[in-house]
Amino acid sequence: MALAQIPCREGDKEANLQEIEQAIEEAHTQGADILVLPEIILTGFVHREALRMLAETRDGESMARIRRKLADFPLYLVYSFPELGSDGEVYNTTCFLQKDGTPLAYYRKTHLFAGEKKITKPGEELICLEVEGVKFGILVCFDLEFPEAARALAMQGMHVLLVPSANMSPYEYPHRIFTVARALENHIFVAYCNRIGAHKSFVYRGQSILVDPSGKILLECADNKRDIQTVQIQLENIRDSRDMYNYLEERRPELYR
Amino acid sequence: MALAQIPCREGDKEANLQEIEQAIEEAHTQGADILVLPEIILTGFVHREALRMLAETRDGESMARIRRKLADFPLYLVYSFPELGSDGEVYNTTCFLQKDGTPLAYYRKTHLFAGEKKITKPGEELICLEVEGVKFGILVCFDLEFPEAARALAMQGMHVLLVPSANMSPYEYPHRIFTVARALENHIFVAYCNRIGAHKSFVYRGQSILVDPSGKILLECADNKRDIQTVQIQLENIRDSRDMYNYLEERRPELYR
Repeated sequence: MALAQIPCREGDKEANLQEIEQAIEEAHTQGADILVLPEIILTGFVHREALRMLAETRDGESMARIRRKLADFPLYLVYSFPELGSDGEVYNTTCFLQKDGTPLAYYRKTHLFAGEKKITKPGEELICLEVEGVKFGILVCFDLEFPEAARALAMQGMHVLLVPSANMSPYEYPHRIFTVARALENHIFVAYCNRIGAHKSFVYRGQSILVDPSGKILLECADNKRDIQTVQIQLENIRDSRDMYNYLEERRPELYR
Repeated sequence: MALAQIPCREGDKEANLQEIEQAIEEAHTQGADILVLPEIILTGFVHREALRMLAETRDGESMARIRRKLADFPLYLVYSFPELGSDGEVYNTTCFLQKDGTPLAYYRKTHLFAGEKKITKPGEELICLEVEGVKFGILVCFDLEFPEAARALAMQGMHVLLVPSANMSPYEYPHRIFTVARALENHIFVAYCNRIGAHKSFVYRGQSILVDPSGKILLECADNKRDIQTVQIQLENIRDSRDMYNYLEERRPELYR
């Protein structure tokens, strides 16, 4: 698996698509089967009207361009963009693409942070998809802070949680804690990919990590610097972590009222 | 608030009661209003038959002795012992005592770890009690590893989570992560008091901590050494931590299925 914390220029699709294409090439060269990009990497968080203008439908031009890139450098891609829904609303959407670019699933961010509520509409569904026998869940940035969301996906059998993020300073510490906690408490891998750079008063510091079910950090990207890294994960670790106890089975839902 | 990670001799009530009495004196001298002791500090985890022999009812001799001590050195006490229930079963029980020793609430550990299931019976209720306008929840050791348990208490208005523990090596790291995660994700204080010493193949390393709603560690006890420390907590921090977002209000329970 690869994480690519690449720069994102607010509102500049062409620059961002070039960065995405470059990331696909590099991750492919590193031997990655699956690549996770940061949250809403196509455009960044611009203001409401601009975001509506830049948002694309699921078969928009940017998607077509990314699909063409994957045809040459095939890998599963976790790609996040502002989606113009068929209902005319804008969603913070993450797409899981097949190696050849065919979309397998779309997840619309369900927990919106503060100002995001003004510019996008929340999704209404959590997604767990199975690919080559591995079950993936997707949660985006603020979603990760709710233990219920990751737990609900784990109860559906999730092995790997994919987390595109645009987490800004000074919230590096809570996100590190939450990434490790979700991995531990659900016996899963968590791939957390955060953006870098600055916009208005926000600074995004990267520090993307990939954590195994024992809470061990397998891969850690640089602090606020472009960085693409790949690591192999061992799915047996999930079974190993359930050896002594299994949180999913030892829950007592009748008490949680 | 004070945490006392004091030694525990397996099966030796007299030695342990002396340690508890000493801890009450010291915490009182430090100016603590409330003192948290480690899990099942009266006896430790002895084998099944021994634990049954040593277990006491709620108004047993050890409780009477602790109440007498509190009469001289008043403080709220969180005290954990093997309880012989009126049903003849043994429970891993934590009692919250009024400053004069009057019991205000009993919590029977609801999530039992591995071998504990052979020696004690699980409780059937989570407890949130209000004292002087502050709402306290109690979770014991393994309980903390289930996000649902702390969340359920937070939904009842909990401000401070009290966690007596007997967590053994090499699980220091998960417990540290969980302690901080529960504080952050519920906007609460978490007072985690772990035992020290060794028994059979187990080593307990202490490292008790008190964490505020921003995840900051306000107090940290030594690694595997007797240590009693007191710190003042500011309940306004709970309100501050809900300034930008409020996890309890922004949950989307309709999606967690």
